[in-house]
Amino acid sequence: MKDMLGREELITVEEALDLLLRYSPFKRPSSIVLPLGEAYGAVLHEDIVSPEDLPSFSRTTVDGFAVNAVDTFGATEGMPAYLNITAEIKMGEQPGVVIKKGEAARISTGGMLPEGADSALMLEHTQQVDDGMIEVMKPVSPGENIIQAGEDAKKGERVLRRGHRLRPQDVGALAGLGISAVDVYKRPRVSIISTGDEIVPIDQPVNPGQVRDINSYTLAGMISDFYGIPERKGIFRDEYEIIRGVFEESVRESQMVLISGGSSVGARDFTAKIINDFGEPGVLFHGVSLKPGKPTIGGVVRGVPIFGLPGHPAAVAVCFGLFIRPVLEILSGQAESRFEKQKKVVSARIARNVSSSAGREEHIGVMLEERNGEVWAVPLLGKSGLITNLTQADGTAVIPLRMTGIREGDRVEVRLF
Amino acid sequence: MKDMLGREELITVEEALDLLLRYSPFKRPSSIVLPLGEAYGAVLHEDIVSPEDLPSFSRTTVDGFAVNAVDTFGATEGMPAYLNITAEIKMGEQPGVVIKKGEAARISTGGMLPEGADSALMLEHTQQVDDGMIEVMKPVSPGENIIQAGEDAKKGERVLRRGHRLRPQDVGALAGLGISAVDVYKRPRVSIISTGDEIVPIDQPVNPGQVRDINSYTLAGMISDFYGIPERKGIFRDEYEIIRGVFEESVRESQMVLISGGSSVGARDFTAKIINDFGEPGVLFHGVSLKPGKPTIGGVVRGVPIFGLPGHPAAVAVCFGLFIRPVLEILSGQAESRFEKQKKVVSARIARNVSSSAGREEHIGVMLEERNGEVWAVPLLGKSGLITNLTQADGTAVIPLRMTGIREGDRVEVRLF
Repeated sequence: MKDMLGREELITVEEALDLLLRYSPFKRPSSIVLPLGEAYGAVLHEDIVSPEDLPSFSRTTVDGFAVNAVDTFGATEGMPAYLNITAEIKMGEQPGVVIKKGEAARISTGGMLPEGADSALMLEHTQQVDDGMIEVMKPVSPGENIIQAGEDAKKGERVLRRGHRLRPQDVGALAGLGISAVDVYKRPRVSIISTGDEIVPIDQPVNPGQVRDINSYTLAGMISDFYGIPERKGIFRDEYEIIRGVFEESVRESQMVLISGGSSVGARDFTAKIINDFGEPGVLFHGVSLKPGKPTIGGVVRGVPIFGLPGHPAAVAVCFGLFIRPVLEILSGQAESRFEKQKKVVSARIARNVSSSAGREEHIGVMLEERNGEVWAVPLLGKSGLITNLTQADGTAVIPLRMTGIREGDRVEVRLF
Repeated sequence: MKDMLGREELITVEEALDLLLRYSPFKRPSSIVLPLGEAYGAVLHEDIVSPEDLPSFSRTTVDGFAVNAVDTFGATEGMPAYLNITAEIKMGEQPGVVIKKGEAARISTGGMLPEGADSALMLEHTQQVDDGMIEVMKPVSPGENIIQAGEDAKKGERVLRRGHRLRPQDVGALAGLGISAVDVYKRPRVSIISTGDEIVPIDQPVNPGQVRDINSYTLAGMISDFYGIPERKGIFRDEYEIIRGVFEESVRESQMVLISGGSSVGARDFTAKIINDFGEPGVLFHGVSLKPGKPTIGGVVRGVPIFGLPGHPAAVAVCFGLFIRPVLEILSGQAESRFEKQKKVVSARIARNVSSSAGREEHIGVMLEERNGEVWAVPLLGKSGLITNLTQADGTAVIPLRMTGIREGDRVEVRLF
């Protein structure tokens, strides 16, 4: 597509992602049965149905006395009701008593309601007369301060859906149901291929003209943070046969492949050629109206999503958030989580004017600052190739596609790192 | 302190935390040198100082030609400047050429600037005349499109501070500096002691009156999420000598101890007694104006923060966010991170009236919903003891201490799970 000035117009971030997702479902990891204690963060491969009524017995939610509600009707501080204490319910035990009219059993929070009783009186609403008798100063209704058997979950009821990622409290709920192992998706494996004749391993000396392998370290950490398993394949020279070999192995063994690119034009064209040589659809987009991140390549090979990433560390961080992370979530089997995004985005006021080109989405590294109770985003000066900018940044402020800039004090969305 | 009606007034959440933090610094984990690839999420125990200039050589940030800026001054599309292509700079190699007046060297992004050149022309602003010559349609200034040697980080400059938690891009920056191992704090160990005569392990059948051990599973996951190492010590009967033994071992071997309580009054008093028996200051608060979570106990023993937690699963989740998480961050060596909180809080409108008692902070499980572009928080009905409420909740809406309720449509702060 050409723009008004006849220049080739690049695809937008949204269009690029849509294009890629048209080839979904991608090759997905299989499932595995894990012991509950190892299932934190895993995505359910099965619906979870309660195997029993929970709780399995009616229990109190307060400390006090198990009673018949009818015995307390009309009770006040001035005209209390009197009840005989006939038993004490032990925690974890089945009460061996029946509570009759005019009787009360001492009970603690979580204790099992004895036969005959239908409600629990709070300790605070009673007064001990002697060892065997209480005054009741406030009435209770039948069922008050009680969780009925099966009220939390009924046998056969679905409590969690396939596609749900298990948070700590979900694992706790499964523990409560006695479910000690769960069928979950395996975590997606993501291969990271570092290419570029100028790239050297971090533990080797650099000669003039060479730089160390930064991006595979950044990517590996981000992939782990979003529940993937990163596989750093190593650094490869820009030679067709070498890269083709490791690319083929990566497509076979993993669910996503990232080629962290040599930054030269030649190296990028080379990446696109290898992706296309593996068959349809191959490269789906090559270049996005995004800064930083314009030279990003996206494609699909044998059901495996592939990204060719720019060499700039800042571009890699932006591409991860916009492209890699959403695809990783799909690969993990996770059902859509609409509010996930809001956990990582805050609204702030920009601390100085920033200009931008209309026709590209721009992400600027910012530090957050609080001024008079408001959050301000202070743009980090310095060129986009700087690595230390990223370590100072709390996140990136987004200037949308169709804007030519923002003024000091304007509201911006900041995507937090 | 008594309230207006003469009732014992409970301490607020803020007061409780302040009281505990007065006994800081707590016993902290020692440090350890980790290979860079294992340091994700760890907190630096040392300032990181750049061991060299970064980049170690001046490099281009565009694809195009290395030139002398002065040769391009005044160039336009109508009146281009002409330059002879005298070399091509290879990636990763030191250029063996000197660029003289009237000359240009072909170069890719990240390539090393050859001697004599002071700037880089973008490919888009040139036109190839023949193999040996280009037209320049736009001038560059000296230094344009170049990152100078040392511009990213100067040798001896501090790039990261002690107390900083290493995010993926920070690990990337360290890789860029050739730092392959870092001195970091060990992760804090948190012992979880489950007590209560009614609690049984999850893989055993429950008899009437018994419930399974839910809270130690929820707590272990939350502790891991915030970089602690959970140690589930097991389930112990409410017997002084037994609990005292496991408590002493836990205080010795870990940096925080959680007693996930028997829910009976007796069991709670028992927890307080054991904490006090280990010496000053012992129990610092017993009961907080908070719902759920009122019976929470906090204390310090031998420099180790101790929490006695209520039995309700919902209360455990709230107490984690309000008390355990902030203390865990301090124990991890992390310097204060002001904007951490905002990553987990969203503003929403409450979907129905909710009443509350003034004088306690109330946390209500909510599901989030989008309606006409706004986020609404739908309170989950049902009693606070229910486990499945927590699995349906996206977070908790907070009704502040001094409010007696909120009306449908009011804005609330939702703490996301």
